[in-house]
Amino acid sequence: MATERPVPDKLRVFSLNCWGIRFSSQHCAQRYEMIGDLIASEQHDIALLQEVWSERDFLFLKRKLSSCHPYAHYFKSGVIGSGLAVFSRHRIQDALLYQYSLNGYPYMLRHGDWFGGKAVGLVVVDVFGLKAHVYVTHLHAEYSRAQDEYLPHRIVQSWELLQFVRHTSCGADVVILGGDLNMHPQDLGNRLIRAHTGLRDCYTETDTFDGCEDGHTLIAVNHFTKKQDLIPFEKGIRIDYILMKGSKKVSMKCESLSTTKGSVAGKPFPYSDHEALTAELTLLQSEESREHGQRNISDSQTAISEQMDVVAEASAVVKDGLCHTETLQARALHLMGGGLLLLLLPLLMILLPCLCSCSHFSFTTTGLLAAAGAVFMLSGLLFYLLFITHIKVLKETEDQMKLTSDDLQSKLSGSRASGFFSSSDGSPESSSSFKREE
Amino acid sequence: MATERPVPDKLRVFSLNCWGIRFSSQHCAQRYEMIGDLIASEQHDIALLQEVWSERDFLFLKRKLSSCHPYAHYFKSGVIGSGLAVFSRHRIQDALLYQYSLNGYPYMLRHGDWFGGKAVGLVVVDVFGLKAHVYVTHLHAEYSRAQDEYLPHRIVQSWELLQFVRHTSCGADVVILGGDLNMHPQDLGNRLIRAHTGLRDCYTETDTFDGCEDGHTLIAVNHFTKKQDLIPFEKGIRIDYILMKGSKKVSMKCESLSTTKGSVAGKPFPYSDHEALTAELTLLQSEESREHGQRNISDSQTAISEQMDVVAEASAVVKDGLCHTETLQARALHLMGGGLLLLLLPLLMILLPCLCSCSHFSFTTTGLLAAAGAVFMLSGLLFYLLFITHIKVLKETEDQMKLTSDDLQSKLSGSRASGFFSSSDGSPESSSSFKREE
Repeated sequence: MATERPVPDKLRVFSLNCWGIRFSSQHCAQRYEMIGDLIASEQHDIALLQEVWSERDFLFLKRKLSSCHPYAHYFKSGVIGSGLAVFSRHRIQDALLYQYSLNGYPYMLRHGDWFGGKAVGLVVVDVFGLKAHVYVTHLHAEYSRAQDEYLPHRIVQSWELLQFVRHTSCGADVVILGGDLNMHPQDLGNRLIRAHTGLRDCYTETDTFDGCEDGHTLIAVNHFTKKQDLIPFEKGIRIDYILMKGSKKVSMKCESLSTTKGSVAGKPFPYSDHEALTAELTLLQSEESREHGQRNISDSQTAISEQMDVVAEASAVVKDGLCHTETLQARALHLMGGGLLLLLLPLLMILLPCLCSCSHFSFTTTGLLAAAGAVFMLSGLLFYLLFITHIKVLKETEDQMKLTSDDLQSKLSGSRASGFFSSSDGSPESSSSFKREE
Repeated sequence: MATERPVPDKLRVFSLNCWGIRFSSQHCAQRYEMIGDLIASEQHDIALLQEVWSERDFLFLKRKLSSCHPYAHYFKSGVIGSGLAVFSRHRIQDALLYQYSLNGYPYMLRHGDWFGGKAVGLVVVDVFGLKAHVYVTHLHAEYSRAQDEYLPHRIVQSWELLQFVRHTSCGADVVILGGDLNMHPQDLGNRLIRAHTGLRDCYTETDTFDGCEDGHTLIAVNHFTKKQDLIPFEKGIRIDYILMKGSKKVSMKCESLSTTKGSVAGKPFPYSDHEALTAELTLLQSEESREHGQRNISDSQTAISEQMDVVAEASAVVKDGLCHTETLQARALHLMGGGLLLLLLPLLMILLPCLCSCSHFSFTTTGLLAAAGAVFMLSGLLFYLLFITHIKVLKETEDQMKLTSDDLQSKLSGSRASGFFSSSDGSPESSSSFKREE
């Protein structure tokens, strides 16, 4: 049995979707003031924020937290930004951003996710001499659970997130992922991420949960707008998470998880339309951490089978998304065709003098037709370019999933043939965590 | 001294920019036939191809090479594609794509880089039981060396490439990067990549070079068009590279590097407008490879100082790029303003009856003015959105460079204070390779 030595301190991680749309989110400035006070007073080691849409608000928090959280990074991408920010009491050594390839449509102005360059940000933090890879992310919103047109986009984002985490977390002593995944615990993308990264959900890992209202589940309530069409999540559904994973050197335990509980004492409104999460993590340094120990063949085979099942499920969703996008692409082509016809019509009118007997009418009409034709052509072209890039991304994801599936299949065959399996080759060490969910 | 045991075989890596623009590149189909024959007959372990712009051509090669190179991956991104393909005799276990955030302008149709989603692709290959992380990339072209408007874009791409390699190569036994960097050996981006990843250039690493013509340098010659404005590279300039890096477990040596030499025996034209590279690499398995051994303080400090210098140089280029893009953004705003004025003018004409005495003239004119105004407004808006995303990317790169620079500074102070430095923490083990260039 390996000996375990606690490292100097515990790690307190905070995550909050700040709902920081300037001039739209209610009481934005006052709430940032409150959020800054909360982080400063609670002295979290690392605070992961989402929806900090304005850099001015990030700079406000940076100034406010400069003495207690001297290290910060604001991830910039897209038109508006990624909205992702990290504040840390420990030194941030490095940062890397991966912008998701698929993130809604620019013409869906009322949803607007496309304009925020949704991404996963990585900061490498030196925590008590240990290398912590801390990820913050925000996935595409779910506007309708019954008819979720963005499901393939969120599945592609989940895939890119897990691939990014898998491939960039290899040298880390501890791995932490916090953010708004916009998915329920048992949703496909969520299972995919957990199964293929080995990240464990702090909520299911801890015995000590102090959450809002019923004490068993977290709540994403829109305290402000109460608009069910905007935030259609029922009480008892989680979409904000803190996930964690240790390494060969360090095993991690979630001592407790707590959330804010709607109203704030002495204040007329909550911190945000999401509840904030705080996880208390214990890091145990060991020769060979339990998380990375060898598992028996049966457990490994079950884990691989589960990984294969969830990839197959995700691949089917991507395939559906591909079919849908190909339909959209065909429509864009039709729009271009229609535009071309409208452009050709005036030419016909000139060539057929009988139609041009009223020169005034025809001049105006031809002008209008040509203008409409040009607009249709241009719009069709832009839509076509958009959908062709989406098709590329969906096909790339499908291919990557196929590779992973084949690799898992060969591992499964290998483990059956050799009667031995070790998880030390960079593949996730466990997919069993998602069995713990109800 | 650590003992070294050779692994079962050498590794032969091939890289070629295929110049595969269908209906534009000359003799495309015949050249793909020749390229396929070359790879099949030479039996390279891994072939890294760029500018395979058409998926049909990739599928042609895949069929042709199916028996000798059963593993292949085609990276899909952008409107046209990334153009990147990998063929391997060894099993490809996984693939990941990172599309560069900055890649020219969509309105520069005659350059067209924007439409190819330039990227770096990673395949994880199981080579004789070793984990090889193989990267293939193609950076933005340099159309004018004297006035290189795309320099900041290429520097951002170089930064993203090195960050991607640094963060995803940690668990690899061997690291190989091949592709068309569109940079000369001593160009800033090239120095940046080598200094911060520790990747070593096969050309400078080997004593056995068999290259085209003068035997000392590789040549990027446009054998077909001879257009100096398109391919302004002089004889003796390299832009195609194979870079390599070992690990703690495996050290790498480049036994030889060879190139194709323009014309092909029995064929009327070369393989491409680039020469193909073939590197013969030897892998030496050791307890602690020489590449990762501790260096003395002076060497480490020199390496860190060089890394800091090159980051500072790159940061200045990014800053220039930011200024330029802000100017472009201002112009886009002016265009929108002009459009708005044109849209308002017809309103003025209606409000000022004196100008509307000739109703026919005014109707046509106002229509034309309104149409022009709308076009200007829309174009201005699209340009504005484009430049704002570019500014976000440039600022993010600047921030990441600042973080790296601060981290290097603290390492330098630390190494001076402690009198000790080890390179085992994921930072590149050497930046000295770029001193070898003349």
